[in-house]
Amino acid sequence: MSVALPPKAILFDVFGTCVDWRTSITRAGEALGQRLGLMDIDWAAFADAWRAQYQPQLTSVRSGARPWTRLEILNRESLDTVLTDFGLQQVSATERDAFNLAWRYLLPWPDTVAGLHRLKTRFIIAPNSNADIALAVGMAKFAHLPWDVILGAEVAQHYKPQPEVYLRSVAALGLTPPEVVMVAAHNEDLVAAGALGLQTAFIPRPLEHGPGQTNDLHPEHTFTYVARDLHELAAQLGA
Amino acid sequence: MSVALPPKAILFDVFGTCVDWRTSITRAGEALGQRLGLMDIDWAAFADAWRAQYQPQLTSVRSGARPWTRLEILNRESLDTVLTDFGLQQVSATERDAFNLAWRYLLPWPDTVAGLHRLKTRFIIAPNSNADIALAVGMAKFAHLPWDVILGAEVAQHYKPQPEVYLRSVAALGLTPPEVVMVAAHNEDLVAAGALGLQTAFIPRPLEHGPGQTNDLHPEHTFTYVARDLHELAAQLGA
Repeated sequence: MSVALPPKAILFDVFGTCVDWRTSITRAGEALGQRLGLMDIDWAAFADAWRAQYQPQLTSVRSGARPWTRLEILNRESLDTVLTDFGLQQVSATERDAFNLAWRYLLPWPDTVAGLHRLKTRFIIAPNSNADIALAVGMAKFAHLPWDVILGAEVAQHYKPQPEVYLRSVAALGLTPPEVVMVAAHNEDLVAAGALGLQTAFIPRPLEHGPGQTNDLHPEHTFTYVARDLHELAAQLGA
Repeated sequence: MSVALPPKAILFDVFGTCVDWRTSITRAGEALGQRLGLMDIDWAAFADAWRAQYQPQLTSVRSGARPWTRLEILNRESLDTVLTDFGLQQVSATERDAFNLAWRYLLPWPDTVAGLHRLKTRFIIAPNSNADIALAVGMAKFAHLPWDVILGAEVAQHYKPQPEVYLRSVAALGLTPPEVVMVAAHNEDLVAAGALGLQTAFIPRPLEHGPGQTNDLHPEHTFTYVARDLHELAAQLGA
């Protein structure tokens, strides 16, 4: 690992890597259920079902089947599908709009905020997420994620793991791929980044999908850095 | 002023409004002159001449005469012109590249950083500048401008005062124009923003162009807010 050049910027996956979307969406569902008197709903299963709509929705944009559509709009459409699947058609449009905003109010992992602050002292830090700008800003304001700049899918008008997203983020910083590290808890994201010449850092988040998680528990490829959390990554990077 | 709706986001012009480009570029020129032994150069006049290239360069992009080109590239071209005009053809390409980076190292006005921090506690804050993303990030890192997100010309692929810049920044935040305040020390910028429905705030920067400044000393139109500096604006906005 010591042969890697010192980077100038660190890009981060956000959902799962920086924030615990599953716990946060589960709690938002529980709050909604209490308020509306919805009984016997497994809100963790609801959160998983909502998230399971994510890749098919993104694929519809990636494939060109539909024009660029930002993630909050896709999430809102997915919510309708999942509410129907759970027999919750009675939830009003106003409640649905409010529930969809729960994706802006996601809890960071315990090391996230301090780790980002530490990395920010030495590097440019930015999300390179499929979240759109409004969603990413809302998440950052709520969770106190101290980004220097919001990059990612909306700036590139493409969704990860399409190469345009990584390359547009690197170019927007006036840098070259080897000057940038992509950080993620997901092997696929890092394989895509590494294939384009970016440095890569794997941070396991073994509870992202709850206690039964089976994927992305370990790095499955050779990455530039592997660290237990953002503190350990900061130490490896000399920050 | 009290009838304006509480905004959700504050957009800022940067050159002149948040940072003192003239003093900073003058100092960078003086340092270059000392290093290279360039005698009897009026570096404040040099800074003014460099800046005077700004609008003609932007117009070449606004008009469609040349494709989208980010500001640092335009500034670098302008530098060649101005060095020739000042009889400094001997400055090397390496020195020119380094001098051009001086636009990333601009001093903030005395109220800027504290004022932005204060506004950030209550609102989304973002530059809506003609600076490109790499330049804006560099400026923010150096001057400690605590932006929530970098918006402006490069995201819109247009230069102010073209309407696309203001409207793209507003849309990127998922907001409507009346929910956003544009802050500038320049009447023209605010007239363009106000015509699109944004709220407007004029902050005079009477030394932007040096002691002989004659333009933009006062608001020349009706703006939503007029304040002496960002502290006073924050107080008016309840932050």
